[in-house]
Amino acid sequence: MKKVYPAILLFSVLSYFSFAQEKIFADANRMEARIFELAEFGKNPQGGVSRISFSEADLQGRQYIIQLMKQLGLEVRIDAAANIIGRRSGKNNSLPAIAFGSHIDSVPMGGNYDGDVGVIGALECIELLNEYNIVTEHPLEVIVFSDEEGGLTGSKALSGELHTRDLEKISQSGKSVLEGVNFLGGDTKNIESVIRRKGEIAVFLELHIEQGARLYQNKTDIGVVEGIVGIGWWDMTFQGKANHAGTTPMNARQDALLAASKLIVQINEIVRKIEGSQVATVGRVKAEPGAPNVIPGKVVASLEIRDLSNEKIQMVFEKIEEAAKVLEAESGISIAFTEAFLSSSALTDQAIQKVIADNAKKLGLSLQYMPSGAGHDTQDMALVAPSGMIFVPSKDGISHAPDEFTSTLDMANGATVLFQSILALDRAKK
Amino acid sequence: MKKVYPAILLFSVLSYFSFAQEKIFADANRMEARIFELAEFGKNPQGGVSRISFSEADLQGRQYIIQLMKQLGLEVRIDAAANIIGRRSGKNNSLPAIAFGSHIDSVPMGGNYDGDVGVIGALECIELLNEYNIVTEHPLEVIVFSDEEGGLTGSKALSGELHTRDLEKISQSGKSVLEGVNFLGGDTKNIESVIRRKGEIAVFLELHIEQGARLYQNKTDIGVVEGIVGIGWWDMTFQGKANHAGTTPMNARQDALLAASKLIVQINEIVRKIEGSQVATVGRVKAEPGAPNVIPGKVVASLEIRDLSNEKIQMVFEKIEEAAKVLEAESGISIAFTEAFLSSSALTDQAIQKVIADNAKKLGLSLQYMPSGAGHDTQDMALVAPSGMIFVPSKDGISHAPDEFTSTLDMANGATVLFQSILALDRAKK
Repeated sequence: MKKVYPAILLFSVLSYFSFAQEKIFADANRMEARIFELAEFGKNPQGGVSRISFSEADLQGRQYIIQLMKQLGLEVRIDAAANIIGRRSGKNNSLPAIAFGSHIDSVPMGGNYDGDVGVIGALECIELLNEYNIVTEHPLEVIVFSDEEGGLTGSKALSGELHTRDLEKISQSGKSVLEGVNFLGGDTKNIESVIRRKGEIAVFLELHIEQGARLYQNKTDIGVVEGIVGIGWWDMTFQGKANHAGTTPMNARQDALLAASKLIVQINEIVRKIEGSQVATVGRVKAEPGAPNVIPGKVVASLEIRDLSNEKIQMVFEKIEEAAKVLEAESGISIAFTEAFLSSSALTDQAIQKVIADNAKKLGLSLQYMPSGAGHDTQDMALVAPSGMIFVPSKDGISHAPDEFTSTLDMANGATVLFQSILALDRAKK
Repeated sequence: MKKVYPAILLFSVLSYFSFAQEKIFADANRMEARIFELAEFGKNPQGGVSRISFSEADLQGRQYIIQLMKQLGLEVRIDAAANIIGRRSGKNNSLPAIAFGSHIDSVPMGGNYDGDVGVIGALECIELLNEYNIVTEHPLEVIVFSDEEGGLTGSKALSGELHTRDLEKISQSGKSVLEGVNFLGGDTKNIESVIRRKGEIAVFLELHIEQGARLYQNKTDIGVVEGIVGIGWWDMTFQGKANHAGTTPMNARQDALLAASKLIVQINEIVRKIEGSQVATVGRVKAEPGAPNVIPGKVVASLEIRDLSNEKIQMVFEKIEEAAKVLEAESGISIAFTEAFLSSSALTDQAIQKVIADNAKKLGLSLQYMPSGAGHDTQDMALVAPSGMIFVPSKDGISHAPDEFTSTLDMANGATVLFQSILALDRAKK
């Protein structure tokens, strides 16, 4: 019986702390103020920012973040891939770090929330730990990835997925990626040094705005991201026969655009008929010769299919191929598919999904499991560590545009879920 | 009773001549030889010709024709619009002329038959009249129109439909139409002098190759052209909402290309369902922004409708508009039509159609009434005189290309029908 008391005492103390920690919420006003401060760097006259990676505005925005990190007591370094890494010691620094973060670069004429919410949210977590004098077991790392919008440069470097040719590409800034990384304080000569091996990072978490309108339309607070979708992209070529639009009777035509239109309608029907959240898009179409008075002899159109499951992408594609074969036989128009691009999906860790969901529920927030239809740094981090991703609503799903908007409350909810998940994972991973 | 004998005698003599004349046929070999001689001017290495109007080849081809006309005893002049006019006196030169002809200019990389068959066929008629010592009641005019392919310049000048702005246009030759007309021996300062008033020409006839494959596919010898179709051309604008192809669920899309595809399919169905030979074509389509990973927010596509009846064109357009309204309501995509071009149809004279048909039948040729889906000089001549048009088959309907082909027999059949129709109209119009 003697041993019971300390055990009970320990339990009570832990319960007390645990209880107290669950009462900690992100400071919405502080986050909003920082979002606005950051929005000054690369600000568009029409609102939003053009904080293109490797630009002067990007450099200045990063300096603002570095200064904030230092104020928060983080040990800051810029790695060879120009990722900004702010480290906070844990009780046991031999443990792998719990890492979290996002990016602050934007597309040209972008908004104030894509990436930024995740970085400001990560710093808010540090702020809360400082305020409540919490020292985690694990060391923590806040990561601000370089050049997310240009092709996930920083996170690819960390996962070892960055190729030499990626460095040679000319970025939106006009600099090559290599020049850009060095401009931001990286060191491309030693870029291999940043690769993280499995086990070096305990878990990775990213808070981000959704880029569709699922949460916004469903009035849901939190999205538990199941993974980042894979993408298949094909070029479809319809070959008919160009002919005089005045002298060729309707029943003697081999109209490639008519066949393409029929398949575009069928693609939509096929994709919607299958259960799941797969999407397929025909975004580009070109009819040749392209004159109002000539029946199109040739059409080239793009086909993009996305899903969390690579097998599902393949299955949808095969159904479209089957429909094309039937159409080909009916119309006499030949239809060919050429694979243009294929990227595998990246799944988040199911245990981490549960931690995020449980903590959202404890906070009384509504939640929904969902895929990310867009690419994120998490997809590369998932290659080196169990990863999780938290989405918050984006007004009307607008993204990559000046009128991108996430409410202060939604941002704070996301940061609170991130904070609570970090604490839960810190306890669980001991 | 005394008066009966001369009447019977006159009838017998007329019957004898009429019978004899019905036995006169065009000389297929002579026509073919001339087609090949003409084909030397502007000859492409791949076959066919590039005898672009106002080019050196056009000038040389015209000189060849003028020399032929002179050999045949025609009185040749070049009018102020650079039309070549070869006149043959009739018994009564106070009667208005019976005119017939076509053009010898071609599109770039054109063939040896479009226009040429009508000109060589017209000269064949003169050849036959000379051989059989036939003098018609009416004077005859063989007209070789200038710049048919560039916009019916010569025939528009004759009908008074040529506008000052037409002369300013830069032609395929690089010369302005004004420079080109003068280069060919015209006199643009006095171009109004060529206008023919109603009654000045008794009838106008044109022999031409079909430019679709109706006759060829039906194995029909002669097409009796009911008229030249009118053309309505609209731009259709589909306005949806551009959005991320990865993050926007299928049920939250406003895909302008999907709506455009649906309407393109419906246009085809609508036009085919209505009885008649109307045609509708969507030849041009542009999706914006036009990236594989963005849902098209806007599509602009052309709509062209042709028919012999302007009312039918309007009726078809209204049915398409109705379908668009239903689609608009279903899809939430706004659809707008803007009229881009409208040209009225030109009907041929029904009595002349009958003369052509009757003479084709007498010759044992198969025939078919049909519209001309393409524009011809006849459409302008129809404004100043009752007109008729004779089509002969074109292999596979190919036209405006080097492999355009009409058999020697088909050409000769067409010229014989033209010849017999001229004689019949000469008798009828006395």
